[in-house]
Amino acid sequence: MAAITAVDTFDIRFPTSLSLDGSDAMNPDPDYSAAYLIVRTDAADGLEGHGFVFTIGRGNDVQTAALEALKPYLLGQDVDALLADMGAASRRLVGDSQLRWLGPEKGVMHMAIGAVVDALWDLRAKRAGQPLWLHLASLSPEEIVSLVDFRYLTDALTPDEALQILRDAEPGRAERIAQLREEGYPAYTTSPGWLGYSDEKLARLCREAVADGFAQIKLKVGADLDDDLRRMRIARQCVGEHFPIAIDANQRWDVPDAVAWVTALAEFDPAWIEEPTSPDDVLGHAAIARGVAPVRVATGEHAQNRVIFKQLLQAHAIDVMQIDAARVGGVNENIAHLLLATRFGVPVCPHAGGVGLCERVQHLSMFDFVAVSGTMEGRMIEYVDHLHEHFVTPTIIERGRYRVPEAPGTGAEMHADSIAPFVWRGVTA
Amino acid sequence: MAAITAVDTFDIRFPTSLSLDGSDAMNPDPDYSAAYLIVRTDAADGLEGHGFVFTIGRGNDVQTAALEALKPYLLGQDVDALLADMGAASRRLVGDSQLRWLGPEKGVMHMAIGAVVDALWDLRAKRAGQPLWLHLASLSPEEIVSLVDFRYLTDALTPDEALQILRDAEPGRAERIAQLREEGYPAYTTSPGWLGYSDEKLARLCREAVADGFAQIKLKVGADLDDDLRRMRIARQCVGEHFPIAIDANQRWDVPDAVAWVTALAEFDPAWIEEPTSPDDVLGHAAIARGVAPVRVATGEHAQNRVIFKQLLQAHAIDVMQIDAARVGGVNENIAHLLLATRFGVPVCPHAGGVGLCERVQHLSMFDFVAVSGTMEGRMIEYVDHLHEHFVTPTIIERGRYRVPEAPGTGAEMHADSIAPFVWRGVTA
Repeated sequence: MAAITAVDTFDIRFPTSLSLDGSDAMNPDPDYSAAYLIVRTDAADGLEGHGFVFTIGRGNDVQTAALEALKPYLLGQDVDALLADMGAASRRLVGDSQLRWLGPEKGVMHMAIGAVVDALWDLRAKRAGQPLWLHLASLSPEEIVSLVDFRYLTDALTPDEALQILRDAEPGRAERIAQLREEGYPAYTTSPGWLGYSDEKLARLCREAVADGFAQIKLKVGADLDDDLRRMRIARQCVGEHFPIAIDANQRWDVPDAVAWVTALAEFDPAWIEEPTSPDDVLGHAAIARGVAPVRVATGEHAQNRVIFKQLLQAHAIDVMQIDAARVGGVNENIAHLLLATRFGVPVCPHAGGVGLCERVQHLSMFDFVAVSGTMEGRMIEYVDHLHEHFVTPTIIERGRYRVPEAPGTGAEMHADSIAPFVWRGVTA
Repeated sequence: MAAITAVDTFDIRFPTSLSLDGSDAMNPDPDYSAAYLIVRTDAADGLEGHGFVFTIGRGNDVQTAALEALKPYLLGQDVDALLADMGAASRRLVGDSQLRWLGPEKGVMHMAIGAVVDALWDLRAKRAGQPLWLHLASLSPEEIVSLVDFRYLTDALTPDEALQILRDAEPGRAERIAQLREEGYPAYTTSPGWLGYSDEKLARLCREAVADGFAQIKLKVGADLDDDLRRMRIARQCVGEHFPIAIDANQRWDVPDAVAWVTALAEFDPAWIEEPTSPDDVLGHAAIARGVAPVRVATGEHAQNRVIFKQLLQAHAIDVMQIDAARVGGVNENIAHLLLATRFGVPVCPHAGGVGLCERVQHLSMFDFVAVSGTMEGRMIEYVDHLHEHFVTPTIIERGRYRVPEAPGTGAEMHADSIAPFVWRGVTA
């Protein structure tokens, strides 16, 4: 029997605030960070499972402490048994009655559980010799359903309904895998639109985005309406009349403000308004969606779990669902999100950027295309060109699309040489 | 100038799982715990501010790490300036852009901020020589409004509307203070109803609760319907036909299960069904409320912040609002909850029990009576007779009612002799 012999954790922080990369109306000076773990075993294969929570700086120590607190659930465990039933492995952590009090299923502890679950997925996919997307897309509908915790979902999605969705998508899996490998997956870029950038940099990056073949650009808004009007005008002039420009308020507004502000920007035909208000406010998003239509509403990067996504869909509060690889209880809960989105007919356009979020979330969209929704129509993955150099299998963008990752694992693994110099020692470099 | 010179934190755990005190359908074996902090200053008065987060065991180390992470926001601060504007002090912590990523406004980091805010309130009330309820009830409507963060609330409650609520309650404050001191505040008891207790113990405790003058009892339900039917029958026989018996499922059910289960128990006339499903599920609670009427729906002990309470009220999802002293961003956010409840005409019956929750939350209900809702009609505070001996100013119950606390502070301070022996050393005693 092979056992888990060590779980090493790291508080890794990149001093991105120094360049204003990632600046928006709510997050003026983020230091992109990762609370990172490596799961080691005594198996002869020498393989490790890597996972992390993405944060933006202060508090990454608390997030790392939460990973430490989960060590007793891993150390000494039989690796084969654990990985063979990832539904049970996930439920054991999420359902721990004492840890559950700290959420339940939200915030620091839930994100830590997600990182642990995903480190186990990394190990499992590496053992299978497959990239995660292909590994998941090789499972039967019954196996996929067994991964999902349907607690609190059955008024919107039952296991039988999920099974039917997956069975409906079974024909054509092989063709879609081939198509993915041929074409890649559509991407949009947020790189032009950070609030801290000058108008000249904005204009240059907008033109580059179109030339690079991206499907859409996105601008941060919400700090100052006059600035937003000027920046939207510049962006629209640079990309042309029909190219999609999404806008993102990063939770800056109350409901009435959101409706008024988006209405003021409507002349520039925004493709969607993202995070107009609190991510907890299902009814608020629904009111905004009614108030700003036909502008679409998108949210999800801060949606804490499947219960929030379920309600956003039930309330017709979102037109675009933005899952995040590192916010929720890991791959298992994100599979629930993909199933819910298909059930309600809403496209998934994942949040990415940060540290390694592109590397990880691409697997979920590609799995979705092959085995769940069966379509890329109206779908695209966010792309931000930051910090990819730290990853062993960095995202590759070609002609504005994600190229399919073929390396085994989830994409979460950082270079050892990137971890050591950025381990937090108490001062922003 | 007096400055904050030290912030000491403690991971305190009581081995309550050994007696099954506190056992319910979701929490079979809690070890009632506190992530505790003491704020010390160099002022000549020698006063300290005490605060804590309540947890149920594992993970209390993570919660304590979150308190540690907040030390830099306190150390060296000018005490007088900090305490003079508690609205600003609260917003500085809740609004920190990097920490905010870990929630936002939910889970481990938000609860830690709440404990810090409340430790500052404890210090401020002690300096004023007043119990917290009286200290708050001595503020002007304008001062109270300045404490509240209205972000994300204005579609349901504006500052002007809050001000009007408080002005409407200003006449009669002195009379209500006198009435409170004379009569105390109504209480109900959960002590009879823990799932781990035998039928004999249940029956004995039910009879005692009525004899002791409590306004209501509460039974845990949701593990096994036959058991629940039997225990409800016993309880109803013991307390008589008209005495209120609330039931509490501790989030055990999905929406359809909740409706079916409560319908099956309806013959015993439950006073309310508490936490029927996920605390995040606003729409689910609304569906349950429609499905089980006239049985009332109560929730809130796990409601993560004011955005959830706002929606529960907007959606007519709850008939009873159960605020908690240690779940949210502290006294300031709970004042928002009291204002929302009054705005929507819903009674507040706080969650208590645990460690020191009775000691703390009574101040909020009493403040509400004096200065916000102006009424005790339909209101009562939960009472559980556990662990009060550890507190410097323990709750006092007389004839089934909370006696008004007169000692300065929030009630959160534990005896030094109770902290030291229960500091966690890695093994449940």
